[in-house]
Amino acid sequence: VGISTGPYSGRTLGTDYTIFKGKAALSMQLVPPTYNKLNSIDIKLDRKGVVMLSFWPAVGQRKYDWQKKQHFALSATEVGSLISLGPAESCEFFHDLSKMARSGSEVKKSLSVAPTSDGNGYFFALSVMNSNTRTNERFSVPVTKAEFAVMRTVFNFVLPKILGWDIIQGGRPVESIGHNLPRQSAF
Amino acid sequence: VGISTGPYSGRTLGTDYTIFKGKAALSMQLVPPTYNKLNSIDIKLDRKGVVMLSFWPAVGQRKYDWQKKQHFALSATEVGSLISLGPAESCEFFHDLSKMARSGSEVKKSLSVAPTSDGNGYFFALSVMNSNTRTNERFSVPVTKAEFAVMRTVFNFVLPKILGWDIIQGGRPVESIGHNLPRQSAF
Amino acid sequence: VGISTGPYSGRTLGTDYTIFKGKAALSMQLVPPTYNKLNSIDIKLDRKGVVMLSFWPAVGQRKYDWQKKQHFALSATEVGSLISLGPAESCEFFHDLSKMARSGSEVKKSLSVAPTSDGNGYFFALSVMNSNTRTNERFSVPVTKAEFAVMRTVFNFVLPKILGWDIIQGGRPVESIGHNLPRQSAF
Amino acid sequence: VGISTGPYSGRTLGTDYTIFKGKAALSMQLVPPTYNKLNSIDIKLDRKGVVMLSFWPAVGQRKYDWQKKQHFALSATEVGSLISLGPAESCEFFHDLSKMARSGSEVKKSLSVAPTSDGNGYFFALSVMNSNTRTNERFSVPVTKAEFAVMRTVFNFVLPKILGWDIIQGGRPVESIGHNLPRQSAF
Repeated sequence: VGISTGPYSGRTLGTDYTIFKGKAALSMQLVPPTYNKLNSIDIKLDRKGVVMLSFWPAVGQRKYDWQKKQHFALSATEVGSLISLGPAESCEFFHDLSKMARSGSEVKKSLSVAPTSDGNGYFFALSVMNSNTRTNERFSVPVTKAEFAVMRTVFNFVLPKILGWDIIQGGRPVESIGHNLPRQSAF
Repeated sequence: VGISTGPYSGRTLGTDYTIFKGKAALSMQLVPPTYNKLNSIDIKLDRKGVVMLSFWPAVGQRKYDWQKKQHFALSATEVGSLISLGPAESCEFFHDLSKMARSGSEVKKSLSVAPTSDGNGYFFALSVMNSNTRTNERFSVPVTKAEFAVMRTVFNFVLPKILGWDIIQGGRPVESIGHNLPRQSAF
Repeated sequence: VGISTGPYSGRTLGTDYTIFKGKAALSMQLVPPTYNKLNSIDIKLDRKGVVMLSFWPAVGQRKYDWQKKQHFALSATEVGSLISLGPAESCEFFHDLSKMARSGSEVKKSLSVAPTSDGNGYFFALSVMNSNTRTNERFSVPVTKAEFAVMRTVFNFVLPKILGWDIIQGGRPVESIGHNLPRQSAF
Repeated sequence: VGISTGPYSGRTLGTDYTIFKGKAALSMQLVPPTYNKLNSIDIKLDRKGVVMLSFWPAVGQRKYDWQKKQHFALSATEVGSLISLGPAESCEFFHDLSKMARSGSEVKKSLSVAPTSDGNGYFFALSVMNSNTRTNERFSVPVTKAEFAVMRTVFNFVLPKILGWDIIQGGRPVESIGHNLPRQSAF
């Protein structure tokens, strides 16, 4: 049975950070973890959160087709990779959805982040290969130094949320809890 | 219809960070997003937040005229630009209010941030050009390294708030929600 | 009339970060702002917060005399100065309590932060001069690189709290508030 | 008597950050402070929090034996040491449990963090020496630059929580409290 974990445990629309460029748009959004209630006081993280990147193509001057969007879900470690990316460094992540349980997908995705030639930003390039439909969709969005600074800051902010550390808000004395937590002094 | 999003969703006066210098004062304040309630559990960000800079002139020894204040509202990406500004770097932002919907304004503003000659801080210079009244008001405030460190830290703090990411506080299991969120494992 | 601003708006004892060294101990503690309620939804920051440093002398092997403690209250900008201190840099702050309203004090204090000879940490030295009693108390505590990293991190954390930005938690649409906030698009 | 300090002051399972490598797994988890209620409004931190590292060995291809886990509890200053660790730097911490009150343990532990040969990450090596059983268990886990970036970010996040600074949420005017807090202007 689901639980409410805060005033906005429902959907929070419009809270994306989106950058619109010539050929495509790139937005990022925090997808928080889901939790299950174990009993009246304890909860269990059911699924870790992600940072969801979405790419969708430009179809005209300042017009973008949201119907053609493709997603890439960044894990905590992938977020850590982007946060620690040096000015001249690049990184690439691969997601093979066919290897995921019950996905039934034949889709492989790769996200490549490489510095722009002026050294002031990065190209975010998404490739989505579908072996069923034999299609390969590509998106490329240049991200400026200022935009990447926003990404880095909000990624720093979301990492504890993705892992569920933000809901750990201060413990109680051991004797007041009905089960025995290990005394930390024993470590 | 408006909703309350926290204990202090009303105005919070006196929470500015202000620096008083010889020719002018510069204050900065967080203007949080506004939200609309969609239903009993979901909300929608109506308007992104900003960091509001205010400049007002000195009119005597340690006397400043708040009536003559001028504002400059920093967007998330502009905040990102300031956060990532290197010691010898500068940046400039332009706001043309005449291009904004329903503003009816003939005002153009520019904010320039440039390193001081000693390399230890920045000059924040605001120019407000009004083509109706044919006036051009100028403010210039030197910001020390320590003051800029305060700005950088609080700007890092407000970026998730400006984008509305601070209210995303932990999701519920999909089955407990009345609508189908996409399973993140599918991305 | 005072208001409660959170579950722990009372005193929170034991939340200091303290380092014990050969000649003295140094602890730091967050003193949050105080607020006044203006009406049912708006509040006003009454007094900005500080980071309170406390020094007290060693009077034997691992024995310290808390009765002889001296304080130094760091403002937001002084915290910013410490946060942005480079490895070989130093800074010094002066507080003249005789210039403060209603203090009736003849005390002048200075805090000096200077790199240790190995370049891996800083000496925090407090001097308290009392012109009435003609005394000058001095404390000096070496702070290691690791301890200074803790200070830097928690100082980054407290800066928005000191300024009161942490209680600004998301606005409501203008039309739902009984007074007219300026539309941010006008800036 | 214990108090509830938030919606999740109970146990929050599954909120660890774990990395699985060839010879062992390494997880980290926030253990928040415990608090005691002093009266209706004041509380006292009873025990500081820690970051609990857990190591457990691989016993086959992608199989790990959680029963053989060993812990190492990082204090605030040890967390600060890791946060400020330079790319080519190393550090080592020693915990002698026999010197802890009432532990009755004959165990000594050491955690060593040293850069990998490619300079892009660190080896986290735990040694647990038990003088009773005359055993010495060793674990070594390579941590990539991206994984260490996650650690650094969440360690920055937890430091104020470990010290209890996250629960200090905004004070009230002195006159509304039944005891006299020192006026900060006196420092």
